[in-house]
Amino acid sequence: MAPTFSVAVLLYPGADILDFSGPVEIYSTQPRPPSASSFHITTFSQHNPVESETRALVYTPNTTLSAIDQKLEDYDILVVPGAMPDLLHKMIANDEGKAIAALISKFAALPPRKETGARIIQSVCTGALLLAASGVLAGRTVTTHHIAYEDLKRIADRVAGGDSRVNVVPKRWVDAGKTEAGVRIVNAGGVTSGIDTSLWIVEELVGKEVADWVAEVVEFERRAEGDAWGVKKE
Amino acid sequence: MAPTFSVAVLLYPGADILDFSGPVEIYSTQPRPPSASSFHITTFSQHNPVESETRALVYTPNTTLSAIDQKLEDYDILVVPGAMPDLLHKMIANDEGKAIAALISKFAALPPRKETGARIIQSVCTGALLLAASGVLAGRTVTTHHIAYEDLKRIADRVAGGDSRVNVVPKRWVDAGKTEAGVRIVNAGGVTSGIDTSLWIVEELVGKEVADWVAEVVEFERRAEGDAWGVKKE
Repeated sequence: MAPTFSVAVLLYPGADILDFSGPVEIYSTQPRPPSASSFHITTFSQHNPVESETRALVYTPNTTLSAIDQKLEDYDILVVPGAMPDLLHKMIANDEGKAIAALISKFAALPPRKETGARIIQSVCTGALLLAASGVLAGRTVTTHHIAYEDLKRIADRVAGGDSRVNVVPKRWVDAGKTEAGVRIVNAGGVTSGIDTSLWIVEELVGKEVADWVAEVVEFERRAEGDAWGVKKE
Repeated sequence: MAPTFSVAVLLYPGADILDFSGPVEIYSTQPRPPSASSFHITTFSQHNPVESETRALVYTPNTTLSAIDQKLEDYDILVVPGAMPDLLHKMIANDEGKAIAALISKFAALPPRKETGARIIQSVCTGALLLAASGVLAGRTVTTHHIAYEDLKRIADRVAGGDSRVNVVPKRWVDAGKTEAGVRIVNAGGVTSGIDTSLWIVEELVGKEVADWVAEVVEFERRAEGDAWGVKKE
């Protein structure tokens, strides 16, 4: 039987609803025993409540950012959603953005989790800008929402104090490789790409059969890594 | 300039996250002026807070079911999400399910909204079972999640006290036609079909250009009405 993977999902006011709801849907839709696979999801934030941009959806996170920070080694997957770039530029400059960037750096320096052998940072959409602000993208081939390719490069360069050697590519998602400690960095493209990316992570951790089963339950035809918006299908 | 469409979104404990988050994302992603179109979203529930099945996402609805019931004529679109069929069968038999079915019937009997000329009931996934329980599907060609085709027919027949003449088809979504009062009934198929269906409703109300713009923002290739799970692409 597959182990239980623990997923920590960052929330903040104005975070794009589907950026985190897509991954939460995929990780919480899993086969029942005997072919069980299991993901336990914990949402966290510096805010409570957490309002979406239009205030239609208002969330109570499961726990705080500082509580997650103290137990960071217990999580296999850290999901970082995006928002409008303007909001992210402001956040990166303030205390909350700095606390998030510090959390991402700390997670990236952990060894793979003993119980599962896994450790993944998953940005969705412009959530990659927060990864750039933490410095973990330097030297990597990465992606983000198609309106934020230049923003991402600019932030990464600023943090690197020069050329960050970040190569931004238009893809549905990118496996940006592992950190020195062994943490895999995965970037989803815009919004609904987070669904494809989560299905791919389920496939990597639990297998293609389970990932395809989840896709069928949510009636979603899986899209290919290279099949990003505006890019010809491979 | 297009009018503002008011969207009421039902929430209940265990409702599928993407069933309502997909439509909320699409309706809240709209062009800014001067090419503005606008949807104002209000979430409502008999519960507060409202927990998703795994309790990862916990919601504070904007208002109560009875408050919406008293102002029903102010809404253009009523979104009814689904859940696991077992949960819905229980709900349909209890007071909450009866209040929801009564709300759906009442909405279906309203004339089109004066300000917009629109009035739409949009079920997503097994939310169609709640429409069936309200009796509004009798005599219609409809759809729902692919595991619930027979459940839907059975509920509709039971409510009709005989053959409901409901014809369940495997589609991404179905325009099930208008009620006598002029309310359009639209059923989305499973989970992510709610995204396609909301984009189609945006196209119907505001135009294809805006719907395609929204699809681009969320990096989602629109799928066709007949392109349902397991059905050959048209």
